Amino acid sequence: MDSIDKLAEVFKEFPGIGARQARRFVYFLMSRNGDYSATLARQILELKKDISQCTDCFRFFVNKNSNSKVCEICNDVNADDSILMVLEKDSDLESVKKSRVYDGKYFLLGGLVSIVEKNTPSYVRINELKNKISNNKSIKEIILAFSLSPQGDHTDHYVRGEIKDLVEKSGIKVSSLGRGLSTGTELEYSDNETLKNALKNRQ
Amino acid sequence: MDSIDKLAEVFKEFPGIGARQARRFVYFLMSRNGDYSATLARQILELKKDISQCTDCFRFFVNKNSNSKVCEICNDVNADDSILMVLEKDSDLESVKKSRVYDGKYFLLGGLVSIVEKNTPSYVRINELKNKISNNKSIKEIILAFSLSPQGDHTDHYVRGEIKDLVEKSGIKVSSLGRGLSTGTELEYSDNETLKNALKNRQ
Amino acid sequence: MDSIDKLAEVFKEFPGIGARQARRFVYFLMSRNGDYSATLARQILELKKDISQCTDCFRFFVNKNSNSKVCEICNDVNADDSILMVLEKDSDLESVKKSRVYDGKYFLLGGLVSIVEKNTPSYVRINELKNKISNNKSIKEIILAFSLSPQGDHTDHYVRGEIKDLVEKSGIKVSSLGRGLSTGTELEYSDNETLKNALKNRQ
Amino acid sequence: MDSIDKLAEVFKEFPGIGARQARRFVYFLMSRNGDYSATLARQILELKKDISQCTDCFRFFVNKNSNSKVCEICNDVNADDSILMVLEKDSDLESVKKSRVYDGKYFLLGGLVSIVEKNTPSYVRINELKNKISNNKSIKEIILAFSLSPQGDHTDHYVRGEIKDLVEKSGIKVSSLGRGLSTGTELEYSDNETLKNALKNRQ
Repeated sequence: MDSIDKLAEVFKEFPGIGARQARRFVYFLMSRNGDYSATLARQILELKKDISQCTDCFRFFVNKNSNSKVCEICNDVNADDSILMVLEKDSDLESVKKSRVYDGKYFLLGGLVSIVEKNTPSYVRINELKNKISNNKSIKEIILAFSLSPQGDHTDHYVRGEIKDLVEKSGIKVSSLGRGLSTGTELEYSDNETLKNALKNRQ
Repeated sequence: MDSIDKLAEVFKEFPGIGARQARRFVYFLMSRNGDYSATLARQILELKKDISQCTDCFRFFVNKNSNSKVCEICNDVNADDSILMVLEKDSDLESVKKSRVYDGKYFLLGGLVSIVEKNTPSYVRINELKNKISNNKSIKEIILAFSLSPQGDHTDHYVRGEIKDLVEKSGIKVSSLGRGLSTGTELEYSDNETLKNALKNRQ
Repeated sequence: MDSIDKLAEVFKEFPGIGARQARRFVYFLMSRNGDYSATLARQILELKKDISQCTDCFRFFVNKNSNSKVCEICNDVNADDSILMVLEKDSDLESVKKSRVYDGKYFLLGGLVSIVEKNTPSYVRINELKNKISNNKSIKEIILAFSLSPQGDHTDHYVRGEIKDLVEKSGIKVSSLGRGLSTGTELEYSDNETLKNALKNRQ
Repeated sequence: MDSIDKLAEVFKEFPGIGARQARRFVYFLMSRNGDYSATLARQILELKKDISQCTDCFRFFVNKNSNSKVCEICNDVNADDSILMVLEKDSDLESVKKSRVYDGKYFLLGGLVSIVEKNTPSYVRINELKNKISNNKSIKEIILAFSLSPQGDHTDHYVRGEIKDLVEKSGIKVSSLGRGLSTGTELEYSDNETLKNALKNRQ
């Protein structure tokens, strides 16, 4: 494996990138002058230096004040700390944040639990979630916000089971994102599950 | 215009068919033997003969007993006549019926009302809907079930306005299909409207 | 099977139409008034009446003068009768005719011969082609014009074999459509076969 | 602009990558551990170090022996040095090389010349091509191998004009890749240009 192959292998791990496009990336880098590659390499390294993982919600954030261990949302006194939205990953949180429809706090679980897995994967921060609930007396509602897929459903079910005792003791309400018609849904082409949810959740 | 052009023009009106495919249909018919065309023509004519439009819900149905004016769903004593689902068109009804998640009655409005239209289009059966509500004392809930689009939204709003007095007088509840995440929705790629609905309708 | 199902079955045989769209066609016909269906049925029947299959090239044509057995291209004294293009089907001929790049005569073979078939399918008019070559003394070149696919290739090979003796005896040249880059071909994404042909046929 | 935005801006310049996917790349890097980023940065820098641009054909190549100025193809005594294929860019060359249908030498022009440009863009190595032709007495044929697009056509025309005197003096033949049907071309859906070329280049 020469330098071209090696770098193509790394790019192939990027989300949504296949062997062919990985190789195009390498040729693209070769065709640009040395400054471009140097800049790219430097920024990749700086990203890791500038970025911290919040010890509270576990999202990655740009640590402007490098002493801070907690992200700007967790630090935000205007955010509603009585609601905690539990999400899978950074890009989901980013999407909700951008939509400006939610002003509570967040917690990143780190991944979904699939139905076939016997043991909870190590990247799933279920213990950290339990600790957060135990230590944080202001939480009144936990919103489980996972994508609508068999894995997302299973994770919803799994988290509810794991935090059941804790939330009952503390009188915390647990909810999941609503289901039904989403933008662009045409009745004519809807699947049964969506129709069932839309009917059940009519209002 | 020769016979080929003429028939291609008619096929071009079929849903989802462009000029090119319309022409392919014509060539396809030319290449089949005469029996095929004769069968097709006969079945098209028979369809119209066998099909009646239900005078109650306005769907098209196969009229096995040609004296019947009312379709088998409207005639079905096992269907719940306390709920009436108002839909745009036959294919929407077909989709809900197939999903087996609903066992009430139906009413086809005949079309949507777009925001820019000043007058209600003639194909919108709003008066027929009002009559049905007035004459049918068993209705306790009306479910508005339109596709999730600006036109669908506007029609929902329009129908609610038109039947407001009637339903208030009779104590009928009016609901709309629930909104939120639908099958396959990934949080990361959701639009603001869907996120807003999913959050508002959490449960 | 009721009238809806029966007609949907027929539409499902249309080129490129699946079960779902076939059913939409039926609902579309139900929703249109009776005149539309009557017109459609009439035009389908008239198509068959107005259309004849040319006894010379076997294409379907609109027979304005219903006594004519031969199409307007075969009758055209301005068309070059020293070249004969052999094509698979009507829509291929239509496409070449529209491009106005060819002014010779045509012959429709009626279908391709696939590699796995032991016997020549009955719809392949190889004997009719041989007769045409034997009886038509003006032909100097035969152009085999099949789509570039394994079946098209095999048919090219098959026809060449079948007419070999005839054309050698009469000194007729046999050619096939040129191969290489086609509009929009990007070298970067080309398959080996196309690159090989493009290189071999460079000029 | 924070580190996330800055890096996303750089990724947005990658071929085929939009704003959204650029951002996903950044989140992906954040989510991987520090080693991954370090490896990626190192390999990007090493690529530039290991890669040289061949002084003969101008392709980028992995310079195993760092003293070498000329790539392994230009150095290959088994490659046929009587034919020179002129291509636009590295990925085109890579594609031809992989197809194993050509065993001559290559020259990378560096880009295409568009019809609207008054002056030849600086990245087009037309002078280098002329020098190569002048200095290399073994060349007997030059194959112009550009993608089949208006720009590719114009570049073909442009290069032919520029090298006209040189090749005439030296008796070098100039050819372009053949045109016609490419793999998968269906006659029914072919554009006029492709049909015209296929007919002209029949054989």
